[in-house]
Amino acid sequence: MILLTPNSRLQTQTPPNAIIVTMNTLVCFSNNAFMPLKDAGLPVTDLGVQRGYGIFDFLRVTDHVPLFQDDHLERFFNSASEMRLPAGKTKEELKEIIAHLIAKNNIPHAGIRILVSGGTSPDGYEIVQPNLVLVLQPITPPSDQICRQGYKLVTYPHQRQIPDVKTTDYLMATWINPWVKEKGADDVLYQQDGIISECPRSNFFIVTQSGTIVTPAKNILKGITRKQILSIAAEQGMKLEERDVSIEDIRVAKEAFISSSTKRIIPVVKIDDIVLPPFSNNSVTAKLYQYLLQREKGFQINL
Amino acid sequence: MILLTPNSRLQTQTPPNAIIVTMNTLVCFSNNAFMPLKDAGLPVTDLGVQRGYGIFDFLRVTDHVPLFQDDHLERFFNSASEMRLPAGKTKEELKEIIAHLIAKNNIPHAGIRILVSGGTSPDGYEIVQPNLVLVLQPITPPSDQICRQGYKLVTYPHQRQIPDVKTTDYLMATWINPWVKEKGADDVLYQQDGIISECPRSNFFIVTQSGTIVTPAKNILKGITRKQILSIAAEQGMKLEERDVSIEDIRVAKEAFISSSTKRIIPVVKIDDIVLPPFSNNSVTAKLYQYLLQREKGFQINL
Repeated sequence: MILLTPNSRLQTQTPPNAIIVTMNTLVCFSNNAFMPLKDAGLPVTDLGVQRGYGIFDFLRVTDHVPLFQDDHLERFFNSASEMRLPAGKTKEELKEIIAHLIAKNNIPHAGIRILVSGGTSPDGYEIVQPNLVLVLQPITPPSDQICRQGYKLVTYPHQRQIPDVKTTDYLMATWINPWVKEKGADDVLYQQDGIISECPRSNFFIVTQSGTIVTPAKNILKGITRKQILSIAAEQGMKLEERDVSIEDIRVAKEAFISSSTKRIIPVVKIDDIVLPPFSNNSVTAKLYQYLLQREKGFQINL
Repeated sequence: MILLTPNSRLQTQTPPNAIIVTMNTLVCFSNNAFMPLKDAGLPVTDLGVQRGYGIFDFLRVTDHVPLFQDDHLERFFNSASEMRLPAGKTKEELKEIIAHLIAKNNIPHAGIRILVSGGTSPDGYEIVQPNLVLVLQPITPPSDQICRQGYKLVTYPHQRQIPDVKTTDYLMATWINPWVKEKGADDVLYQQDGIISECPRSNFFIVTQSGTIVTPAKNILKGITRKQILSIAAEQGMKLEERDVSIEDIRVAKEAFISSSTKRIIPVVKIDDIVLPPFSNNSVTAKLYQYLLQREKGFQINL
């Protein structure tokens, strides 16, 4: 039996009433049909397998609602277009498949991965017939305890290739994972020549001593939660800058946090040897978190 | 029907007596058994698909002989070890599978891809049970005409991640392929800050005006044909240096060529705006090519 959770570290903190789901009971969409996840496969000749060539998007389902679905689908179609990987479905058709996946699996809190892999290629390069796969998996968002405790990050010199596209390239993130754990960190923060970009699956923010929220502007994947934070900041008249963030900026920052669709907002309390203040209810991070929760509660699905 | 050749450009130059093979007739090794390639699949949850996490090696079969098999298997096991992807087979077992694949498919000139993908992961990162797949595909090595005509290359700023490992990461190579064709080039040559590394599937060499063979030493995948060339040069007392090669070095070079298991040695006649002399029988490139052919002919399989 495989316990599917987004983060093995969280597994031990799964509350007692958590839904334990095996792959045998999950239904996915593959090869243009709904089918048991355990039966869904891709040809070994698929460019996704052979050449690591694929794109995806990942959205969170809360109380059966696919949060910020339009934003995710917009980014998904941008990724697909940029990588010449047509999904073979319209936005409306994908919404319908997502609604069916949620209903068929009946797991109130889940993640849905919408993936297009390159398909079998006649010459190992040319894209002929990409494959569309949608997988729903149960997820457990981080507990309040983790949010209060905060994350420790460790920096590593790396720049994701084609960074503005949500490709399936997590080679570095997967490879480096044991080293990150060895360092006692919860995640890795990529930097290049001292300039921060992102975590593999999260965006990065600092709050300066003067209270300005700052987040990297370039060489990153622009997250949907990041987009919500920018919008909240504008709405609430909070100071926000999209610009380069250096290690030195972190050293003198008041707060730091990461954002992602699964994790929402998590304060960062340590980066390498830099210690940041513990979580406080009066922090900018805590305010943004509360506003984000409100947005989630008020989210109306647009079919 | 899919015509499986390593390079679609070469397809038009396939000699009339070439063997046209469809996927329906090919036998591969997957899920620990020999099976028709058309039936072989990987779970959609495999890390190879979801995270682009996999390694492989590719060896050429000539007259039913897997050329330089020990060298390829040595590199394969190094890649597997470096990425924590155990193949689940010994070197001897893989040799036996390769021999069976050659016999079962009965295609005298072929390429064999030995691939290990990450397998299904409980948390999307942790490697639990990798999948081993061996696929034999017919290939057509470049014709004498192409060798005489030479390749045109176009440079692009990129550095492969984890470059000394033969990962399945060809995201950039696949993505950039249409641009390379638009530029009228046969392949892309990666550079970073003016220092050359490699082509996506080939190593790069220049020959200086004084007749020294020079090839990049670092940030590359060390090819098996490259290894043969180094060994030939040592055996024949030819001058050879493994060191950085800059664009400026190319500008004043006498010859340039690329090497790969499929392509053997192909002279390079143009790189961006730099024009190099056409192929000559008296060139160092031509001599190395002849020595390589001799080595292939004299190759004894070591079971």
